Amino acid sequence: MKVVALAGGIGGGKFLRGLVRAVPPNDVVAVVNTGDDLWMHGLRICPDLDSVTYWLGDAFDRERGWGRRDETFRATDELRRFDREAAWFGLGDLDLATHLYRTRLLADGRSLSEITGLVAARFGIVARILPMSDDDVTTRVDVVSFGQEMDLHFQEYWVQRGGRDDVKGVRFQGLDAARPAPGVLEALAEADAIVFAPSNPVVSIGPILGVPGIREAIEARRDIAVGVSGIIGGAPLAGMADRLMPAAGLEVTAAGAASAYQGLLRGWLVDERDRELAPRIERDLGIRVAVADTIMVDDDDAEAVARAALRLLGT
Amino acid sequence: MKVVALAGGIGGGKFLRGLVRAVPPNDVVAVVNTGDDLWMHGLRICPDLDSVTYWLGDAFDRERGWGRRDETFRATDELRRFDREAAWFGLGDLDLATHLYRTRLLADGRSLSEITGLVAARFGIVARILPMSDDDVTTRVDVVSFGQEMDLHFQEYWVQRGGRDDVKGVRFQGLDAARPAPGVLEALAEADAIVFAPSNPVVSIGPILGVPGIREAIEARRDIAVGVSGIIGGAPLAGMADRLMPAAGLEVTAAGAASAYQGLLRGWLVDERDRELAPRIERDLGIRVAVADTIMVDDDDAEAVARAALRLLGT
Repeated sequence: MKVVALAGGIGGGKFLRGLVRAVPPNDVVAVVNTGDDLWMHGLRICPDLDSVTYWLGDAFDRERGWGRRDETFRATDELRRFDREAAWFGLGDLDLATHLYRTRLLADGRSLSEITGLVAARFGIVARILPMSDDDVTTRVDVVSFGQEMDLHFQEYWVQRGGRDDVKGVRFQGLDAARPAPGVLEALAEADAIVFAPSNPVVSIGPILGVPGIREAIEARRDIAVGVSGIIGGAPLAGMADRLMPAAGLEVTAAGAASAYQGLLRGWLVDERDRELAPRIERDLGIRVAVADTIMVDDDDAEAVARAALRLLGT
Repeated sequence: MKVVALAGGIGGGKFLRGLVRAVPPNDVVAVVNTGDDLWMHGLRICPDLDSVTYWLGDAFDRERGWGRRDETFRATDELRRFDREAAWFGLGDLDLATHLYRTRLLADGRSLSEITGLVAARFGIVARILPMSDDDVTTRVDVVSFGQEMDLHFQEYWVQRGGRDDVKGVRFQGLDAARPAPGVLEALAEADAIVFAPSNPVVSIGPILGVPGIREAIEARRDIAVGVSGIIGGAPLAGMADRLMPAAGLEVTAAGAASAYQGLLRGWLVDERDRELAPRIERDLGIRVAVADTIMVDDDDAEAVARAALRLLGT
């Protein structure tokens, strides 16, 4: 059963750990958000691609919640002695190797999708990881802080400033001109199932759907498309969806998250805590809703969630 | 007594440790070779500037002979797992902070000389360190390996390939169009002494003298210019001058090194092992030659060498 998963970083990575246990890993293609990517100190950093890679490669630090396990921060700690302000993005020493490798290959003219495949190979990953696009897309967050309007890179909004600003809107620079990365449309066309991972609908899945051609490809196959809500009990388990969904006109509930994918889904998996929302979602969106324990503490949990999502496609 | 020292990496750094004890450090300006600089994995690396900075900042690893003390190599070791070939330039984790900091500031439009000053400040260095130029100069080494001609970056020749190839010539890309960094000509004009550190005359001091304007400025002040031979007993203490000097038509002796600076020197300091060369150098170049123990094992040795060099300017 060939499965394409649309994924952001943390929720996506966690879910994918389970998906590659629910179906053979070489049948899995992860299409990953690149809107959060940034240039930092001359290096190209792709937070969501790296999170997914580290998760699937069993190299992710689950306790810290980002970056690699057994990581050290000698370079960043030292950089802080040069300039405290400049070192706001925590680059681990092992993690730096990924960025050094990627930046060199980009300078050599290799595409992000090729490089992503090489990085995945180093971690022994059998599933295929694809960036949503090889073209640069940049998520910008318009905020107001103490009456002052600011136009921030997503990472400035979230990591540098801790997500403390009032969000007025989210924009995706370069999205209209971006093309799906090689393999993305083919994978969607050949899939037996398309799964929206429990990632942020605005800044993780949103940019993927915004790449011209991807939304249309999924619409055409909505009979095999299901999603897992990353909003549980009216709040995201992690991240800042509660701040960004209202700015995008979405209710911060499992119903609001589903409505972000209106017209693209056959089924939607919500957490047991949101059981009472199921009838409303079914009625409003005309889709099938299932209920399960969707909190993924370990890979067994993630596998159960993946299986529950795929079961929505059964007759 | 204001002193300008022309310096490469190791010999230069060692010597400068002594110079800032022989005269007040705020009277010292080091003008440093940048021909070895390179882009690597997206980062700008300035090996000689960094060596001099780490020496003067007491952060150099004297045992290893390059890089920082208490260094680790987690990022480079990990990069080697991505691509063994790509990780030939050993970037330490602490050292990486310097390159990350510099690359970011270059991208922000700051000049190399400004950045060098900021890096020196982080290490509490009182002496002034200046790149020879803010413009890019690249030392290329033409070699023959098993009958095949190759045009290598200096670091490819020396670090990646271990200096094993036959050297046919050395070229400095961009040198003719390079301008002295701000402060270099002023420092030379105001100096009470100009000292050629015991660095490689071809690839360390050579590029500095090749920046249009610098040679002329030193020529005009040759009455206050002295040098220390980095060639002792017919060989360099470290490095590859024995390979490069013949390609530049220079004898690999303290006399050959002095001849590289013909017309620019008042005095030349040679090691005791080269005592018998002194009369010939004095006769051929018409300069004063002094003899001393020039091997610098510690800062006391370096101070003695600096004092002996400056004494050549006495009456």
